[in-house]
Amino acid sequence: MAFQPYQASMLALGKAPSVIRETFEYGIRRAAEIGSENVFDFSLGNPSVPAPESVHDSMRRLMEEMDSVQLHGYTSAIGAEPTRAAIAEDINKRFNAGISAQDIYMTCGAAASLTVTLHAILCPGDVCMTFAPFFPEYRVFVESAGAKLIAVPADLAQFQMNLEALTELITPETKAIIINTPNNPTGVVYTEENLNAFCDLMRTKAQEYGHPIYLLADEPYRELIYDDKTVVPYLPNLYDDTFVCYSFSKSLSLPGERIGYIVVSPKMADSRNVYAAICGSGRALGFVCAPSMAQRVVAENLGKTGDLSIYRKNRDLLYQALTDYGYHCIYPDGAFYLWVQALEPDAKAFCQKARDYELLLVPSDSFGCEGYIRIAYCVTTEMIERSLPSFKKLAESYGK
Amino acid sequence: MAFQPYQASMLALGKAPSVIRETFEYGIRRAAEIGSENVFDFSLGNPSVPAPESVHDSMRRLMEEMDSVQLHGYTSAIGAEPTRAAIAEDINKRFNAGISAQDIYMTCGAAASLTVTLHAILCPGDVCMTFAPFFPEYRVFVESAGAKLIAVPADLAQFQMNLEALTELITPETKAIIINTPNNPTGVVYTEENLNAFCDLMRTKAQEYGHPIYLLADEPYRELIYDDKTVVPYLPNLYDDTFVCYSFSKSLSLPGERIGYIVVSPKMADSRNVYAAICGSGRALGFVCAPSMAQRVVAENLGKTGDLSIYRKNRDLLYQALTDYGYHCIYPDGAFYLWVQALEPDAKAFCQKARDYELLLVPSDSFGCEGYIRIAYCVTTEMIERSLPSFKKLAESYGK
Repeated sequence: MAFQPYQASMLALGKAPSVIRETFEYGIRRAAEIGSENVFDFSLGNPSVPAPESVHDSMRRLMEEMDSVQLHGYTSAIGAEPTRAAIAEDINKRFNAGISAQDIYMTCGAAASLTVTLHAILCPGDVCMTFAPFFPEYRVFVESAGAKLIAVPADLAQFQMNLEALTELITPETKAIIINTPNNPTGVVYTEENLNAFCDLMRTKAQEYGHPIYLLADEPYRELIYDDKTVVPYLPNLYDDTFVCYSFSKSLSLPGERIGYIVVSPKMADSRNVYAAICGSGRALGFVCAPSMAQRVVAENLGKTGDLSIYRKNRDLLYQALTDYGYHCIYPDGAFYLWVQALEPDAKAFCQKARDYELLLVPSDSFGCEGYIRIAYCVTTEMIERSLPSFKKLAESYGK
Repeated sequence: MAFQPYQASMLALGKAPSVIRETFEYGIRRAAEIGSENVFDFSLGNPSVPAPESVHDSMRRLMEEMDSVQLHGYTSAIGAEPTRAAIAEDINKRFNAGISAQDIYMTCGAAASLTVTLHAILCPGDVCMTFAPFFPEYRVFVESAGAKLIAVPADLAQFQMNLEALTELITPETKAIIINTPNNPTGVVYTEENLNAFCDLMRTKAQEYGHPIYLLADEPYRELIYDDKTVVPYLPNLYDDTFVCYSFSKSLSLPGERIGYIVVSPKMADSRNVYAAICGSGRALGFVCAPSMAQRVVAENLGKTGDLSIYRKNRDLLYQALTDYGYHCIYPDGAFYLWVQALEPDAKAFCQKARDYELLLVPSDSFGCEGYIRIAYCVTTEMIERSLPSFKKLAESYGK
C-alpha cells in the first residue's frame, strides 16, 4: 500500500461539509450583506440563555477562597471525589437510583462521555445502533471506535423509538444502543410506555444472544422539559446495563466549558471492570481529567439551570404560529428544537428556498431521515417574532 | 471469537498500576500514619506555584465584561479566532516563525495535543519513535492510535538524543518521532548541536524513504528553563514537518484546566490537508472545542508565568545537596525533575529502600530506562530542606 501522509478517514471528517456549520457560516456572510437583524438563523444548538448567576458566584468564590494550586491542579483522572459524591447524592435524591461516587467518571462534556464509553466497550465487528433521526456525530464517534453504526428508521407518526424496525434489524453483533431523550433533532420525549417496551425488548434480545446489550443514554437535554406532566424516567432504574452520558452544557448554559460525566450503573454486569475500561479509554484518548475549576463549579450548582422559561416561550410561539401557517410540526416536549415537515419532499431544496426569505433551517437528511427540517429555537424571542412573516410567506409560496 | 464485554486493552490500561500514581497513593496513606510533615513525596509532576494573579484578573474581568452566552458558548472547533491570532503573534515575536492563526488548533492540553495529532497522522503499520527515557503515556497514545511505539535507548552519558541508536533502529515504517525538551523525566535540555544533527538525520531518512517523517515537539516545559544561556530553538524553524504540541499547564500553573494547542507548521508538505486531518481527529475523539473561558484567559496571559524562580531554587538546592552526599545527578537545565542514578542496579528496590527514610521517589523503569530515579521537585522548598537528612542517611546506608 502506498504511503499515507495522514489518516484518510480523519481528513474526510475534517473536510466534511457539515450542513449545520455550512448554514451557520452562510448566515454570517448574509448578515454582513443585509444586516444581522434581517437574517433569521435557526441552525445552531448553542444555548441562548446566560448561565445562572450562581455559576459566576461560585467561580469568584473559588478563586478567592481556594488555593490556586489545588483549584487549577490536576484532579484524579476520574474526577474530584467531592464533585462525584455531590453528583451521586443529587441523582439519588432525584431518582432514588443507588449511584455512588465510584460509579461516576467526570468528562469534558457529552461528546467525550460518548467517545470514552464507546472506545471502552466497542470491539472490531461490533454494531452500535441508534434511532433515526439522530445527532449525526453518533456515526463519527462509533466509527472512530472501530465499530459500525446501524440506524433504526424513524417512526414517522410519533417520532418515538421505532421498536418494530429495531426488532427486525437487531442482530447478535449489536453491543450497544444510543438513545437520546429529550431528542435532538425532534424535541420529542420518549414516553414511559415506549421506554419500557424498549427495555423489555433489549432484555429479551440480550438473553437470546447470551451477552449484554448496553444502553447509552445521551442526556444533555434532561432538564430542558417544558410540560409538568412530562417525565423522563432515569434509565438505570429501568435497565441494568445502562451508561448515562451527561453534560452540563445545556442545563447550566456552559457548552464551551466542556464539563459532563458518565454514570456506569452499579447494576451492570461486571460494572467495576467496565468502569476500569472507561478509565483506560479516557486515558488512551488523552483526556487526563475534566476541567478542574468547572468540576468544582458544577458540584455547587446541581439542580440549578439558566432561565429555561425563555425556551418554553419560544417553543410555544413558534409551534403555534407555524401550525397556524399550515406547517406540520411535531410537538416538542423538550430540548430546544422544532421538527417540521418540509413543504416539498426534498428537504434540502426546501431549505434552499427558505433562504429566499432569510430563514436558515437545517434539512433532516444529515439526521438520517428525509423530508423534515430542524429549527433550533435557542435564539431570542424577539428574533422569532420578527421571523414569523417570513415563515408565513414561505408557506404561502407553497400554496398554504 | 467469544463475546468481549469491553475492550481488553482499555481494561488493562484502566487497571494498570501506574508506579507514579501508586507511589502518590502510598504517600497519602503514610502521611495519615506518621503525619504529612514526615513524608517526602517527590512523585508527581503537579506544578506547585500558583497561577500568576493576572490569570484570575482575566477571569474576573471576562465574567464582568463579556456576555455569558459568548464567554461560555462553543467556540469554533479549531478554537476562537482571537486566541489563535494572539498565540500566532506571540510565537512570531519570540521565534520569527511565520505562523498564522490558521496553523493553530486549540486543544484540551498537551495529552490532547498528542492524541489528536497521532490519530490524525498514524495509520495501521506505522511506527512512531521516541527517545528513552520518555513519558510513559507516549506508548499509550501511540498504541491507541493503532500504531507501534519504538523507543530509542538512552544516551547514558548525557541523556541527549541518542542519534547513533536512532540510525540503527529507524525504518521506512517510521512516520513520526516524538521529542520532549526540556525533558520529562531527566530535566535535560537538548543542545542545539544535538537538535541540528537530529533534524539532519530526519531529513536524510525522509529523503531515503521517499516520505515525510513528522516531528512532534512535546513542549509543556518550554518556559521552565533555569539558565540564561540555555536556549530551546523553535522546532518549526529547524525542521519543516513539525507539529508543536503545547500546553499552558506548567507555564501558567493550570494543569487541571486542560488548555493547550497544536501548531501545524505551514512549511510542512500538504499542511492544509494535514491541518484538516487534525480537525477530523479532534472531532472523532470527541473534543468539540477547548474550554472556552480558558481560551480567552490564555490569550491575555501569553508570555506570563507563575513564579518559576521557586523551581530554580529547588533545583539548585537539591542538585547541590545530593551531589555532595555522593549521588550521581544529571544536571537539569529545565522542567522540574531531577534524574539520579540509583545506588543499586535495581531502581525499584532502591525506591523501596528509600521509603524506609520516608522518601517517595519514582523508579526509572516505567520511563524505558533502568537504574535511575526521578525526583519531581515541584514541591515546597521547605519540604526539600526537611528531606535532606533522609537523602543523606539513604546514601550512607549504601556506604557513601
